[in-house]
Amino acid sequence: MNKNMQRLSKQDLEALTVGAAILGSGGGGNPYYGKLHLLQQLAKHNGHVDLMPLHALDDNALVVAISGMGAPTVSIEKICEGQEMLRALQAVQRATGKRIDAVMTAEVGGANGVRPMVTALQAHLPFVDADGMGRAFPEMHMNTFSIYGHCSAPAAMSDAHSNTVLFAHLVDEARLERLARACVVHMGCTAGIATAPMTGSFVKQYAVPNSVTQALQLGQRVLAARAQGTDPIAAICRHQAGLRLFCGKIVDVQRRLQGGFAVGQVHLQGIQQYQDQTAQIDVQNENLLFRCQGRVTACVPDLIVVLDAHTGQAISTELLRYGQTVSVLGLPCHDLLRTPQALNIVGPTAFGYDEVTYRPIATQHEPPRSALTNSAI
Amino acid sequence: MNKNMQRLSKQDLEALTVGAAILGSGGGGNPYYGKLHLLQQLAKHNGHVDLMPLHALDDNALVVAISGMGAPTVSIEKICEGQEMLRALQAVQRATGKRIDAVMTAEVGGANGVRPMVTALQAHLPFVDADGMGRAFPEMHMNTFSIYGHCSAPAAMSDAHSNTVLFAHLVDEARLERLARACVVHMGCTAGIATAPMTGSFVKQYAVPNSVTQALQLGQRVLAARAQGTDPIAAICRHQAGLRLFCGKIVDVQRRLQGGFAVGQVHLQGIQQYQDQTAQIDVQNENLLFRCQGRVTACVPDLIVVLDAHTGQAISTELLRYGQTVSVLGLPCHDLLRTPQALNIVGPTAFGYDEVTYRPIATQHEPPRSALTNSAI
Repeated sequence: MNKNMQRLSKQDLEALTVGAAILGSGGGGNPYYGKLHLLQQLAKHNGHVDLMPLHALDDNALVVAISGMGAPTVSIEKICEGQEMLRALQAVQRATGKRIDAVMTAEVGGANGVRPMVTALQAHLPFVDADGMGRAFPEMHMNTFSIYGHCSAPAAMSDAHSNTVLFAHLVDEARLERLARACVVHMGCTAGIATAPMTGSFVKQYAVPNSVTQALQLGQRVLAARAQGTDPIAAICRHQAGLRLFCGKIVDVQRRLQGGFAVGQVHLQGIQQYQDQTAQIDVQNENLLFRCQGRVTACVPDLIVVLDAHTGQAISTELLRYGQTVSVLGLPCHDLLRTPQALNIVGPTAFGYDEVTYRPIATQHEPPRSALTNSAI
Repeated sequence: MNKNMQRLSKQDLEALTVGAAILGSGGGGNPYYGKLHLLQQLAKHNGHVDLMPLHALDDNALVVAISGMGAPTVSIEKICEGQEMLRALQAVQRATGKRIDAVMTAEVGGANGVRPMVTALQAHLPFVDADGMGRAFPEMHMNTFSIYGHCSAPAAMSDAHSNTVLFAHLVDEARLERLARACVVHMGCTAGIATAPMTGSFVKQYAVPNSVTQALQLGQRVLAARAQGTDPIAAICRHQAGLRLFCGKIVDVQRRLQGGFAVGQVHLQGIQQYQDQTAQIDVQNENLLFRCQGRVTACVPDLIVVLDAHTGQAISTELLRYGQTVSVLGLPCHDLLRTPQALNIVGPTAFGYDEVTYRPIATQHEPPRSALTNSAI
């Protein structure tokens, strides 16, 4: 083993899954099945995944980002065949004719923080400790690679039956989302996807760094808090510089499958210090927007996380149910997602919220400057 | 020039277009723009298309079927960029790594009887005198190649902006239709498509033979009848062993774009010997089913052709209008489309008409056997 590599093994899986679920911001697919699949593959292969820190990545190495695509509501009912992402990776390799040196996940959140490791094992490749989101986003082009100039084509997707589609040439990144989404609907709403190789130097500059380690450590804090009987929610906030936005009961969940996405709204009735307050979360696979008493207090690209109020276990959007008692956290996204360039792609207006201006989560809860000015007058 | 080749040149284009429009059975795209495009390309290249008769095709030659895909209602408003099919052909060539020896059209009807010749000129390849339908059908897998065992993957499609998608592996032929149709909707409802190469021996056995020549000769008969002041409709029926089904005025056209298809119904009020009768045509890009007085008297895979009653000019489904005086003809399809195997894919039940049993057009107008038996009783 390369001495630069870290080993991720069976005993890391629980923490990794807990952390990835939190970073999923409600989406990225439910990590439970991903964990089972990875456990099985770890047993079959050499017992560990080679996790490659960014500093160990050669500038000229070729890295392919892989992920699952579809609607989370489907992925919890339809078990993966298991080689969807591998076939997509192989199709990209064939199309480029180049040797791939490592894989990484396109999104660290949810199942996509875990399942691509299966592909790393199957392909005998190291897994780079980074991703393109530092969270999960519903659309393919919503990642730092596309935002900062990488061309995803040739990209490939493959379904459980081995139907494989290659997007050989694309004039823009959003086109991949539109075409792949159209195809995934006819692939039973789940598929594996791989995009064109990136150089190591590009990945070092534009990927969200160390995000696998971050998910792992985040999960470890939650598990430690649970073991020690301390507040796991507080542990998450400390580790991620996050804010507690709300605590309440889910009183309504509206959810439907639309255009290959799980979309809907979740309504909450406050408890404890939020007694008599109501809140609402808008969902498109992931949690997009959080309103308390009708006012937006957190929105994309920052992470809105719904957790079991007692265990700190993240509840992905497809598992939200009437009657659950939940805490809602706001976690700051990576700075790479906060540039004007990035906000065009992953900010609230990119999701159709033209009336919402993004304000970083940490400042959302300070009085707005204009209010200060007004009171000074 | 190979002495086996025929030359198709500028002076053949008018007849070819008229014939292809008739064989289009209402669809295959409006051939008018295809004709203009081919005229331009003939002027640019060497002035003729090399039309290769089937007997001149080497058994081991590799032939790629190409065509346009989309909704005819869109294709008359959105001019092609011009190299859509060429890019699709090149993508298939790259994916297979094999030298392509000739191209042919997947469907001889409508624009697809003309426009693929542009690609033959651009790619400097001969054009095989055959196709996969002997008409036009709305769905990709409705051709004799797919019906008789050819696997369309790797198939490629490209749009006006050069977005190119390769269907690298498909578990069944209908999947190509579903995935390509999903993509074409996001490509503005028009794209060029090319499917995996076939051997010369397969084409000789399973393609509808001589269909380009047939379209050409059919058009020549119509033009001759017009020039001589004789009945062009009668000339078509003679040449194609067809039947006059109806003559009337269009009193209603219902048409909408649905899932990448132009679908609808056309209602007719009879004139002349059809006075006091009404008729109806069901449309999905092509004319699928003809009912007179509520009774089905022609259906897929036989050809239902709507023509200007005076000139014999076929009217494609997107140009049908209230008030037009039309003749409706039924033309027998090729025997390759009448086997049980073929009827599963292109017969009335394949289009959802479970209550309709296909009876070849020639026998539709004989009294049914049961009626004879009844009258004998």
